Amino acid sequence: MSKVLVFGHQNPDTDAITSAISYAYLQKKLGVDAEAVALGTPNEETAFALNYFNVEAPRVIETAKNEVDSVMLVDHNEVQQSVSDIKELEVLAVVDHHRIANFETANPLYYRGEPVGCTNTIILKLYKEHGIEIPKNIAGLMLSAIVSDSLLFKSPTCTEEDVKAAKELADIADVDVNVYGLDMLKAGTNLADKTALQLIDADAKSFPMGGKNLRIGQVNTVDVNDVLSRQAELEAEMAKQNELNGFDMFVLVVTNILESDSVVLVVGEPKEKVETAFGVKLENNTAVLSGVVSRKKQVVPPLTNAFN
Amino acid sequence: MSKVLVFGHQNPDTDAITSAISYAYLQKKLGVDAEAVALGTPNEETAFALNYFNVEAPRVIETAKNEVDSVMLVDHNEVQQSVSDIKELEVLAVVDHHRIANFETANPLYYRGEPVGCTNTIILKLYKEHGIEIPKNIAGLMLSAIVSDSLLFKSPTCTEEDVKAAKELADIADVDVNVYGLDMLKAGTNLADKTALQLIDADAKSFPMGGKNLRIGQVNTVDVNDVLSRQAELEAEMAKQNELNGFDMFVLVVTNILESDSVVLVVGEPKEKVETAFGVKLENNTAVLSGVVSRKKQVVPPLTNAFN
Repeated sequence: MSKVLVFGHQNPDTDAITSAISYAYLQKKLGVDAEAVALGTPNEETAFALNYFNVEAPRVIETAKNEVDSVMLVDHNEVQQSVSDIKELEVLAVVDHHRIANFETANPLYYRGEPVGCTNTIILKLYKEHGIEIPKNIAGLMLSAIVSDSLLFKSPTCTEEDVKAAKELADIADVDVNVYGLDMLKAGTNLADKTALQLIDADAKSFPMGGKNLRIGQVNTVDVNDVLSRQAELEAEMAKQNELNGFDMFVLVVTNILESDSVVLVVGEPKEKVETAFGVKLENNTAVLSGVVSRKKQVVPPLTNAFN
Repeated sequence: MSKVLVFGHQNPDTDAITSAISYAYLQKKLGVDAEAVALGTPNEETAFALNYFNVEAPRVIETAKNEVDSVMLVDHNEVQQSVSDIKELEVLAVVDHHRIANFETANPLYYRGEPVGCTNTIILKLYKEHGIEIPKNIAGLMLSAIVSDSLLFKSPTCTEEDVKAAKELADIADVDVNVYGLDMLKAGTNLADKTALQLIDADAKSFPMGGKNLRIGQVNTVDVNDVLSRQAELEAEMAKQNELNGFDMFVLVVTNILESDSVVLVVGEPKEKVETAFGVKLENNTAVLSGVVSRKKQVVPPLTNAFN
């Protein structure tokens, strides 16, 4: 089999970067000429994890067809979240924990989707099914992804399988998950030196819903006011991005990782769909979303229902 | 968890019927209140297998939302091949060996797709992963599906995993796979008392391709002339079905299961796409497709490429 690139979604988070590394390593052990790459540079949280476990960041690609004919996707499946020339490539495999949408192949493929909190929880199973040992540093990165996606097991997306997987991986990586995990999460909340565009777009993904094109970003923080004090500047940047990219609406979810609540900031129309989705009234374009920390489980599904 | 229905595609073949039975049995063993149902009655091949292993045919449903909120799909994922009200239902799980297309969920789900020859080859793995024993009669049905989908291991869709799975299942079911398999396949080629509609539509599936709506049927036979002697009658029925259902083209693949060749019969436009797809010239609306026995691997992909 010729060379295969393995990558996570655009605007990569810790799971997107590390699941490419862990899945590519597994594929190499299974005899595939696989290389982990990324569709963007690591955020500060991911950089902390890579540095801690002494692993280099995957190189960043803009297109893949110039290098390979076939790819494997981790932590995403939707076309608009993938590499720009995905439609020209054969997708051989997907390992993911998101909804399936805007994804189509001409041929049968390997698709492993499970409704767990983190792609690396599934990848741990695949290592076991194939009887492949996980190196210490890769186990550390896989653990980092579970901590990141589950906000240290507080997110409603977190399942018993994720908790169990994290324990196993922490043993292999030889770290205290609570100490290491909080240090890593805090490394990702250093927002002061970020531009408005970096804040709104760092983790943003596009979601077509009911004929509208939504952009949904999420920022983790230990103090929501750190972000909201820049509301005017953020709104201007969100409006600009809507116009530049044809988004109908930009939804920014600002999540307090210590208190497990979020504030939503909305620019674009129709705003009443957001109010319907969450059962809230927007005031000054914002609303508190009590107990909401997961875009995937608590933001995208109610918005999808409201728009459809 | 409330009750869940498990079913394969419309116009069910042996894999569609038996994978619903085998997967529902596995789910029941895992504590899910699952019932295998079907989107049509068994064909003669499947009826032979059910009768041989003394298992009742699953009851046929037209809609599912009137009974349940959630379903599990086997041997298909595309909306137009599924139950009529699939868009109103939550898909909890899919086990399939086809391309993924026209499939979208609002929530993460369990999706197990593998590029093997038969859904039941994947389901055998799932039994093993969960450590669940397979009853003799269910093993016999799973074996029947592998024989059916692989035309006794002759189809290019057949992988080493399918052959290995069939051996394991034949041991559990206590049958000689070659003797039983050929008897079962022959039971499915009794075409004389079938109407033209039954012949063209028994195994037909719809495939949207490049803005066109294709209907692709397949008939297995031990003598292609048995079918082609009725060409005028078949063409009239294909034209009628195109008009009634808005198909742009009806493609009927008549497969000789002993010689592993097919003849294609085409009604509708643009026919030149079919010629491009297979590198043939249609004469009198037909062409020989040498070595073609698999709709999934040898018919749908070249047509998809030609139409896109």
